[in-house]
Amino acid sequence: MKELGYYNGKVGELSEMTVPMNDRAGFFGDGVYEAAVARNGIIFAERDHIDRFFRSAAKLRMELPYTKEELHEILQGLVDRMDPGDLFIYWQASRGTASRNHLFPGEDVKPNLWVTMSLKEVKKPGEPIQLITLEDTRFLHCDIKTLNLIPAVMASQAAAEAGCGEAVLHRGDRVTECAHSNVSILKDGVLVTAPTDNLILPGITRAHLIRICKDLGVPVREEPFTLDDLRSADEILVTSTTKFCAAADRLDGQPAGGKDPELARKLAEALYDEFRRETHDI
Amino acid sequence: MKELGYYNGKVGELSEMTVPMNDRAGFFGDGVYEAAVARNGIIFAERDHIDRFFRSAAKLRMELPYTKEELHEILQGLVDRMDPGDLFIYWQASRGTASRNHLFPGEDVKPNLWVTMSLKEVKKPGEPIQLITLEDTRFLHCDIKTLNLIPAVMASQAAAEAGCGEAVLHRGDRVTECAHSNVSILKDGVLVTAPTDNLILPGITRAHLIRICKDLGVPVREEPFTLDDLRSADEILVTSTTKFCAAADRLDGQPAGGKDPELARKLAEALYDEFRRETHDI
Repeated sequence: MKELGYYNGKVGELSEMTVPMNDRAGFFGDGVYEAAVARNGIIFAERDHIDRFFRSAAKLRMELPYTKEELHEILQGLVDRMDPGDLFIYWQASRGTASRNHLFPGEDVKPNLWVTMSLKEVKKPGEPIQLITLEDTRFLHCDIKTLNLIPAVMASQAAAEAGCGEAVLHRGDRVTECAHSNVSILKDGVLVTAPTDNLILPGITRAHLIRICKDLGVPVREEPFTLDDLRSADEILVTSTTKFCAAADRLDGQPAGGKDPELARKLAEALYDEFRRETHDI
Repeated sequence: MKELGYYNGKVGELSEMTVPMNDRAGFFGDGVYEAAVARNGIIFAERDHIDRFFRSAAKLRMELPYTKEELHEILQGLVDRMDPGDLFIYWQASRGTASRNHLFPGEDVKPNLWVTMSLKEVKKPGEPIQLITLEDTRFLHCDIKTLNLIPAVMASQAAAEAGCGEAVLHRGDRVTECAHSNVSILKDGVLVTAPTDNLILPGITRAHLIRICKDLGVPVREEPFTLDDLRSADEILVTSTTKFCAAADRLDGQPAGGKDPELARKLAEALYDEFRRETHDI
């Protein structure tokens, strides 16, 4: 073959291969990968790549359902099906196939193994390369709702394992957002919520909450707030499309919020009522 | 239907739906998404979600091949096929289907539209939520070789559009790595390369380069270096599995390196020779 695809034991022409829509790679990018080259049917530095693959998986708490030797056997078996020539070899493990949910799927769901191989000449180095420099702004782009969601997956799972419904993220002392929600606080009758800069996703429910506050005469301050502000807030409000507006009663195991339940309830009900009106439910 | 999948016009039971293995969502997470809820066949805040979807796509320089109104029609048509009840609606656009390559595919490749819908009760808010706090370390896990690769895609594309082969990333003054390679420098006969902390991917070719330097009596310093060090380096060496070791001759449009070509060539050839020996090519 000239271009091969492999998925959990199935092999075919890469361009004809498909994978389940619910593979977590497609929704969350929830997986790890390696790329290597081969000549004469021998994968170069294969052990180094397999070792790193297992290390990457472990860092994401993915347990691979095969040994390093078994993975080598799979890769070698595929190499042997390729036409003669240098090869580019790529493989990845995704966390498994399951309905989209940030939390890890159950233990019966095993990681999926993807492999692709193609004929590609390994060139002798020698040609110079031209470069540009770029400030590394990775993850300063939280305002874009992308599929690069591993951090949201890991934080959601950590929250669930702590018996919690969400994780509040902070950068140093500044509270930004939750793993897959926004977070705001009520203090002395004022809604305080982080501004929609590059550190938070501009939540639609958050925007509705601000509008509703203004309609109800509740002052709104869109400005950064701190962990101390969070801990001493009258109410902590977590907003998202599916939750609308949930008030928190515990934070890191300690009682939290609960000091302005009437206003919290009023805002949550106004958000929900808006949903019901817009969907002709009332 | 109770759980629906849609992919570029094809509709079916979600659990039976598949997508091409080469959809860029699967390898790079190269796409954007939205999630919404519906009741009585009406998608709540649909216009807000569609507007943000188009904004997210534009920020990743993805041109969506439909208008907002056409997207609404697609979503509404799918809603109408669902059984009665509240719905959870998810959609995403990936940059298209093409062999894995960090660079954007050609203009003939259009974004793919994925939609999933499932019956899910939209609950009235009221239950309190429990929270944990977590330091946001999203930009500090570059040592894990994950599929969350949008930053690598965007930087690689920027480099290519500047006529360059790679982008050197830096955080403030510190040079870390390239978009999909490591970068090291030669200065006064010494190899200087960033340490394998959490800011760089521990490259296998980089590790081979260090070993080869030691074999050849070339001193190695694994320590952070700066943009100034890069600009004044005798040689800039870019290492990766497919490039082995390429010396740079231009940096941000200025001449760069080229002051120790003999050592640069010696190291590149030693890396390539190792590949040839290991693959029984010599």
